Amino acid sequence: MADGAEYAAPRAGAAASYEIPSSGTTVDGALLVGLLMAFALIGVAISLGESVRSFVDYPSVLIVLLGSFAVTMVSFSIGEVFSVVPLLLRTMFPPVRDTRRACERALSLAEIARRNGVLALDHVLPQLAREVFLQRAIAMAVDGTPPEKIESVLVTEIEATSERMTRSANVLRRAAEVAPAMGLIGTLIGLVQMLANLKDPNAIGPAMAVALLTTFYGAVLAYMVLAPVAAKVDRNAADERQIQQIYMVAASSIARQENPRQLETLLNTVLPPSQRLDYYS
Amino acid sequence: MADGAEYAAPRAGAAASYEIPSSGTTVDGALLVGLLMAFALIGVAISLGESVRSFVDYPSVLIVLLGSFAVTMVSFSIGEVFSVVPLLLRTMFPPVRDTRRACERALSLAEIARRNGVLALDHVLPQLAREVFLQRAIAMAVDGTPPEKIESVLVTEIEATSERMTRSANVLRRAAEVAPAMGLIGTLIGLVQMLANLKDPNAIGPAMAVALLTTFYGAVLAYMVLAPVAAKVDRNAADERQIQQIYMVAASSIARQENPRQLETLLNTVLPPSQRLDYYS
Amino acid sequence: MADGAEYAAPRAGAAASYEIPSSGTTVDGALLVGLLMAFALIGVAISLGESVRSFVDYPSVLIVLLGSFAVTMVSFSIGEVFSVVPLLLRTMFPPVRDTRRACERALSLAEIARRNGVLALDHVLPQLAREVFLQRAIAMAVDGTPPEKIESVLVTEIEATSERMTRSANVLRRAAEVAPAMGLIGTLIGLVQMLANLKDPNAIGPAMAVALLTTFYGAVLAYMVLAPVAAKVDRNAADERQIQQIYMVAASSIARQENPRQLETLLNTVLPPSQRLDYYS
Amino acid sequence: MADGAEYAAPRAGAAASYEIPSSGTTVDGALLVGLLMAFALIGVAISLGESVRSFVDYPSVLIVLLGSFAVTMVSFSIGEVFSVVPLLLRTMFPPVRDTRRACERALSLAEIARRNGVLALDHVLPQLAREVFLQRAIAMAVDGTPPEKIESVLVTEIEATSERMTRSANVLRRAAEVAPAMGLIGTLIGLVQMLANLKDPNAIGPAMAVALLTTFYGAVLAYMVLAPVAAKVDRNAADERQIQQIYMVAASSIARQENPRQLETLLNTVLPPSQRLDYYS
Amino acid sequence: MADGAEYAAPRAGAAASYEIPSSGTTVDGALLVGLLMAFALIGVAISLGESVRSFVDYPSVLIVLLGSFAVTMVSFSIGEVFSVVPLLLRTMFPPVRDTRRACERALSLAEIARRNGVLALDHVLPQLAREVFLQRAIAMAVDGTPPEKIESVLVTEIEATSERMTRSANVLRRAAEVAPAMGLIGTLIGLVQMLANLKDPNAIGPAMAVALLTTFYGAVLAYMVLAPVAAKVDRNAADERQIQQIYMVAASSIARQENPRQLETLLNTVLPPSQRLDYYS
Repeated sequence: MADGAEYAAPRAGAAASYEIPSSGTTVDGALLVGLLMAFALIGVAISLGESVRSFVDYPSVLIVLLGSFAVTMVSFSIGEVFSVVPLLLRTMFPPVRDTRRACERALSLAEIARRNGVLALDHVLPQLAREVFLQRAIAMAVDGTPPEKIESVLVTEIEATSERMTRSANVLRRAAEVAPAMGLIGTLIGLVQMLANLKDPNAIGPAMAVALLTTFYGAVLAYMVLAPVAAKVDRNAADERQIQQIYMVAASSIARQENPRQLETLLNTVLPPSQRLDYYS
Repeated sequence: MADGAEYAAPRAGAAASYEIPSSGTTVDGALLVGLLMAFALIGVAISLGESVRSFVDYPSVLIVLLGSFAVTMVSFSIGEVFSVVPLLLRTMFPPVRDTRRACERALSLAEIARRNGVLALDHVLPQLAREVFLQRAIAMAVDGTPPEKIESVLVTEIEATSERMTRSANVLRRAAEVAPAMGLIGTLIGLVQMLANLKDPNAIGPAMAVALLTTFYGAVLAYMVLAPVAAKVDRNAADERQIQQIYMVAASSIARQENPRQLETLLNTVLPPSQRLDYYS
Repeated sequence: MADGAEYAAPRAGAAASYEIPSSGTTVDGALLVGLLMAFALIGVAISLGESVRSFVDYPSVLIVLLGSFAVTMVSFSIGEVFSVVPLLLRTMFPPVRDTRRACERALSLAEIARRNGVLALDHVLPQLAREVFLQRAIAMAVDGTPPEKIESVLVTEIEATSERMTRSANVLRRAAEVAPAMGLIGTLIGLVQMLANLKDPNAIGPAMAVALLTTFYGAVLAYMVLAPVAAKVDRNAADERQIQQIYMVAASSIARQENPRQLETLLNTVLPPSQRLDYYS
Repeated sequence: MADGAEYAAPRAGAAASYEIPSSGTTVDGALLVGLLMAFALIGVAISLGESVRSFVDYPSVLIVLLGSFAVTMVSFSIGEVFSVVPLLLRTMFPPVRDTRRACERALSLAEIARRNGVLALDHVLPQLAREVFLQRAIAMAVDGTPPEKIESVLVTEIEATSERMTRSANVLRRAAEVAPAMGLIGTLIGLVQMLANLKDPNAIGPAMAVALLTTFYGAVLAYMVLAPVAAKVDRNAADERQIQQIYMVAASSIARQENPRQLETLLNTVLPPSQRLDYYS
Repeated sequence: MADGAEYAAPRAGAAASYEIPSSGTTVDGALLVGLLMAFALIGVAISLGESVRSFVDYPSVLIVLLGSFAVTMVSFSIGEVFSVVPLLLRTMFPPVRDTRRACERALSLAEIARRNGVLALDHVLPQLAREVFLQRAIAMAVDGTPPEKIESVLVTEIEATSERMTRSANVLRRAAEVAPAMGLIGTLIGLVQMLANLKDPNAIGPAMAVALLTTFYGAVLAYMVLAPVAAKVDRNAADERQIQQIYMVAASSIARQENPRQLETLLNTVLPPSQRLDYYS
């Protein structure tokens, strides 16, 4: 990574480069490959049988898909339901969230502040446009906000961000609970219809097959898509939260005009042993 | 929204308008549309079969509906059970709960206090008749109650309100647990009756269809109505709680005679980035 | 209610009556009506079928009822198991627990203390014989125990009372978990017996009906009786806890010799808006 | 109980007897009677059928018993698995745990300390050999350890004891989760074997009976033995914890050289109303 | 154990040996024996039947194994999924985690510090290469870091280590939830295929056998492998955490230059009675 070069500076004692490694978006390979693989397996398993067509029943698809959507909508506001779309996009194409790089970025800013004074960070702020939270945090330090105030404001913001993500994730989680229930309701409808008309014994098999389809759709929707994606959203929220906490610690340390060496020690306690920073120690 | 005009005042430095944007009630579209859609889907699925009439069985309806009501009643006081009716009305036609507008309202009051003194808020109190909590909070500030006292009184009140809403929601949640159990009990009764009289093989099908109906009714009642509505009530309670906290923070800030600018910073930490206030910054 | 008259006194400024509204026991209508209604529905549903007698099987009743009792007993001491009897009586015929009246009672005592001094409460203590907790709390204030001490002693007592009630409720809750398990075990016994002797196809139906009966009994016992009553016990414990907290706050306020007006404000934060006290404000 | 005589002393103002009521072990009647009764019921239910022998299948017993043991062992160390044996013995034959007698014992020691000085307790220490925790606690007070130190050391020890008991109980709890799973796996093996060889329709019944046996064994093992005993272990741990807390409070009170009267008040908040001590009040 | 000899020194008052008992890796016998035994039982149960081959169906294996892997991957990053491999190795061949030996090691270091001064520990640091956490902790004490700082840094590190282990264990736990769901989905596919083609009644049995296989594989994978191993990982993490806390307490005690006797008292509160240290007391 080209970042190494920039960060060699503090350790070598040279003037800190003002380039802050920018963060972009990436593709969540694990999520997309996992989903494709799972659906491919199901597809192959179905196509190995003789009756691929018996797995397609549009009314059943409607009951499970639309029904789960409708029942999920009951529990939320329309805004929250549609907040799932950007959430899903952000989950498939997440911002680069690399704890170590966040630490490097934080340390690099602390080094600038130590060498050129806190006000020098004012020039760096535009480079942080992609990291709105870090930008706000550093701006507060530059403005001379007292460190306790910075911490209390940022902690509230971290909580609020985290709660907003949880709410969107709740929509997915609730949908994952609703889908198997809709599948069960669909199957009960099918069973009652079949049992009420037991005239032709030959029709029992296919009728039960159709009745089971909603259970099948509900299980696939809930256990293969909704629940795993909701778990991923939670995991990402935890990552984001950790990075925001790193930035808060850094902004507070800069406002306190501490030695960046102390910040390094603090950040290293968060990083796994193999990724620890060692610019100063 | 016409509110924009009033609130332009503080930023432009002009005299603050004394009109506080009033809040009314609205219709919870997501809830009503979601329920209608879900039931329409079930209705269509049933009517696609040949035996619509086999889905109607009055004793089964009674066991599930009345039975769930009776068993739920056991766990509560009669007052609590009937508190569900106003709760449902309030859930279908909720008060306008808009976090940003609550922040604007709070900030507008803080601006009035800064310009004309805290006592000037006395004239505004009648306009807050629809927001009883805010009215009480501001009245305390006007009365000169010390800010710590305001906070401690209001925190207890927020907790108590929240607990009262939780209790009513618990009735729905318990009913959502009871309904499938009553459905199971009904189905067991049907199965025992059918199995004890296996004389006519042709009667098995219809008898099992009827036995399954209570399970079907229980599932529809619990998973399509009670559980989703209970989740909505919880979500609304969280919203209400947040708005009450905003009002508490505002009343405390006014009593402290802080600069509204500080209040704005504080409230912005709660608002999502896209909705942040910027009258002062 | 006749109480209104007594309590009009403080507001009108007249001498406080020394009569403290006494609390007695009442009948829990919701619990008894709910249980009766649920069992009546089950009874009607059974009697609509042709085979009422096939719902009675004494060995099955024994396995579920006695078996649930035995297995529940394993997890507790004999004392705890039998503490369920007074608990059930106290749940069916609970003491009058009215938060507002508890507040009035507390306020009335505070008013007496303000007018005639804390020692005057000594004469009132015998009237509180039915409210042992309140009596103890006030006795401590009369004895001149410092308010912090009163609070710490009473908080420990509230916790201990609450834990004792939880333990008794746990017996019911555990029995509600055990009953369906015993039902399942009974049904498995029945199924194995039936399957091992598949000689007469005509006997299959009735044999399965009998096998299902334990599941039916277990479900009725757990979901219609034990679980709802356990939930009611929890609800009552929460009520009791709240009233004990009100009395603790009052005793502490009296020991602090605060103005009853302050106590009123404090108690009002706990009461729902429609029931608030307004003797002083 | 003969204890009453000894303890009458403090109240009557006479010299405290140095005999501390010793505690021994007892038999947990509720546990043993409960288990025997439950198994007797199952035995009777089985013997009422014609096919007692069809309930015995050694491979099924092995899969469920040995299998549950093996899978449970995976989650723990061998030491933890075998710590279940002394735990079970201690659960069947528990030490006498009587909260009131523990309070009396504590008060009696406090009375000795008040009359004859803390050092006099040195002579009593050997009598406490059966209550190792109390002995250690009093020894610390005799050694002149400061009360805060006594509390902090004992709190850590209470936590550690409690965690060790929880770990052993976890073995039982995990086994209670594993047993029904092993039952399900055994039944699936039986079903697959039966379905793959559907030649002789007469063999279906007995084969299914055998397949269901593992589910039956798993249910009996988990719901009638393991889960109830694990719940009992938890309950006993809570009792033990409470008594250790009583001893800690007493040792700390003795080290503080407080009046035993204060200790009595404190201990009474923990005891149920009917069992309260009244030597001083 | 040879350790006894070294540690006899402090008690006898002789010069402390500088050899710190090294810790290596071991084999988790309980885990390996448990898994082998469980699979052997299943194998025997299958081979007792006539149709061993009907338990092998490659498409079913793929759906459950690969499908569970794919769906689990959706919820994590690729790095996290593969962190399971070293986690499993570390679980099968764990480092020696012996609480008592950790205490001895800590006490031995404290003794060296008391006799030869904290700086003497500098020579011992290389011997601690296998206990990275202890090495870091002692290095901080040698560097003269203030004890509060040592504690705060190490607490953060313990939390972070613990969270990293939890995340890896979460992969196993999620997989244990996914596997039965994939088994259910596979069985639903098989049932729909079978029911849609009910031409040959003789094929029903074998087709259902195959359909049940995915449920069987899912149950074995989840309940016999993934869930027990995840529970073991949690148990090991708790052990590791405790040992890290012991080392933290020791490093802090050394930095405070406390008497090792005090450290012994503190560590003994954590050890079970039978394993307590008694070098000083």
